[in-house]
Amino acid sequence: MKKLCVTVLLCMCGGWVLADAVPYSIDRTFTHTIESSINGKQYELYVRVPRSYASSDKRYPLAVLNDTGWAFPTVCGVLQLLTVKDMQEIVAVGISYSAGDAGGTSRTRDYTPTFAPDETSFHSLEAKQVSGRAVDYIAFIEKDVLPFLVSHYRLDMDNKALIGHSFGGLLGAYILLTKPSLFEHYIVGSPSLWYDDKVMFDLEREYAKKTNVMPGNVYMYVGEKENTKVHTMVDDLKNYERQLRQRQYQGLSLSVDVVPGASHHSAFPHLLTDALPKVFPLN
Amino acid sequence: MKKLCVTVLLCMCGGWVLADAVPYSIDRTFTHTIESSINGKQYELYVRVPRSYASSDKRYPLAVLNDTGWAFPTVCGVLQLLTVKDMQEIVAVGISYSAGDAGGTSRTRDYTPTFAPDETSFHSLEAKQVSGRAVDYIAFIEKDVLPFLVSHYRLDMDNKALIGHSFGGLLGAYILLTKPSLFEHYIVGSPSLWYDDKVMFDLEREYAKKTNVMPGNVYMYVGEKENTKVHTMVDDLKNYERQLRQRQYQGLSLSVDVVPGASHHSAFPHLLTDALPKVFPLN
Repeated sequence: MKKLCVTVLLCMCGGWVLADAVPYSIDRTFTHTIESSINGKQYELYVRVPRSYASSDKRYPLAVLNDTGWAFPTVCGVLQLLTVKDMQEIVAVGISYSAGDAGGTSRTRDYTPTFAPDETSFHSLEAKQVSGRAVDYIAFIEKDVLPFLVSHYRLDMDNKALIGHSFGGLLGAYILLTKPSLFEHYIVGSPSLWYDDKVMFDLEREYAKKTNVMPGNVYMYVGEKENTKVHTMVDDLKNYERQLRQRQYQGLSLSVDVVPGASHHSAFPHLLTDALPKVFPLN
Repeated sequence: MKKLCVTVLLCMCGGWVLADAVPYSIDRTFTHTIESSINGKQYELYVRVPRSYASSDKRYPLAVLNDTGWAFPTVCGVLQLLTVKDMQEIVAVGISYSAGDAGGTSRTRDYTPTFAPDETSFHSLEAKQVSGRAVDYIAFIEKDVLPFLVSHYRLDMDNKALIGHSFGGLLGAYILLTKPSLFEHYIVGSPSLWYDDKVMFDLEREYAKKTNVMPGNVYMYVGEKENTKVHTMVDDLKNYERQLRQRQYQGLSLSVDVVPGASHHSAFPHLLTDALPKVFPLN
C-alpha cells in the first residue's frame, strides 16, 4: 500500500515514475502507536535500539525527544556516529505529533506552558487557540509513554534524558519547573524563552518560592546567531541562566553554551554531538 | 516479511516481543537498486526529495554521499532542519555499501585510492586485500549513478555536491585529483590522509605536474581532537591545505576548518550544518 502511494505520488508530479521505490528505513527502529490517557490523542513512538541490543540482556539508558520529523533522523545518525567510540549505547525514542493534527498545532498545544492566544510569534491562529497544555503532555510522558517503553524495552529508568529544541527546549525547561525528577538529564536547545511575554521567568520565580531543589543534569544551548530582530534568544538564555544560578538549587547541574556560528536550526545537531557524550559517557 | 523479521529478532533477544513494530521510514525518501557496470556489484541508492518536489516542476541541486548507515539519516535530519530558512531545497542521495559485502570491505575497496594490503590502520585483512578501487567507484558514480538519477529525478546537474567523511573524505579528495569536474562542490570531512603512508600527498604532486587547473568549490573539515596517538589528522589536513594552496590551482576555491571540540565522529554533523548553507545558499 505504501509502495502504491509512492508510485502514485510520483506519477502525479511531472511524469517521474518510480515504480519500485520504497522509503528508506532506519536500522534497528520500531514504530508503536500509543494513546494519551490524558487528552485521548494518538501518537507514534519511534524507538531506536543500539547495535548490541539484540544480543545482550542488559538495560540501556534512554533518550526521549520530540519534533521527530527532523529530530529523530538526526539523533539516529548521530548515535550511529558516536556509539561506541564517543559515548555508550542508549535507546532513543521519538514522540510524534498527535495523529490528525497539524505539526504546528500539536507542538504548540503539547510543548508550551501557558495559554497564549495573542502570542505574535510562531504557528497558526488555530495552534495558538490550543496552546499551553504542556502539563497534559508531561503527564502523558509520565503515565503512558515511559510505562509503555519500560514494559517493551530493556531500559535503565534511572538514566533517562529529555532532548528538546525550540518549543521542545521550552518544554524541557518547563518540565524542570514542574516535574524535574521525570528525567535525570535535560538537553535543552534554543528554548523559546520569548514565549508569552517571557512567562518562563515568572514561572521560575514561582517555583523558587516553593522549593530550593531542582534535580537535573542540564545542558542548554543556543546558536550564536539567535539574537535577531524578532527575538533575543541568546540574551534570553543568558538571563535565564543567571536567574537559575542565583537560586543555587540543590541537585541542579547546569551548563549553558552559545554555539559558535550556529543559527536556530543548525544549533540542534551540535547540542546532540556535544551533550550526548557528556550525558552518556563511555563507562 | 520485514515485519516478520523484526518480530522474530525481538522474540529471540530475551522475550521482548514487539508484534506490530515496523521500522521508522524517513519522509520523502525512495530506495533503488543499481548495479555497477564497472565491478558488477549491486548497490542501493537512497534518495530524499525536498518538500516542494511533488508540487513543482523545477530541477533541484544534488548532494551525493556515502557511508549511508550514519550519513543518510543525519543528512536527512539536517536538511529537514535547515531547509528553507538557512539553505535552498536540494535532493540528497546516499549510495549504500555493496550488497553482500561487509561495510568495511565495501568502503575500503570503493573509497581508497591505492592498494595497501599492509596498511596498519582500519578494517579487516580481507578489506585491505581489495583496497584501492576508488577509480572503479568514481567511474560507477559517473557512468551509472548520475545517469540513473538524472533520468529518474528532476536535478540541476550543474549544481552537484559530493559529501564524504573519513574514508569518504579521502574519496572526495581523490576525486579532486582524478575527475574534479564530476561535482561542482566537495564537502570533505576528516579525510584519511594518513592512508597508505600519506599517498595522497604524492598523488597531488603527480596531479600538479600535469595541470594547474582543479575546478571545485571545496570545504574541508577536521575535528579539533583528531590529532591522536594513532594519527595526526589535524596536522595532515593543514599540511595538505598548504600543499594545495601553493599550487594556486585555477578554479579551486578552498576552505579548511578545524571544528572546535569535535572528535572524528562528532565532526560530521558540523560539516553538514556549516557547509550546506554555503554550498546551497538561499536564492
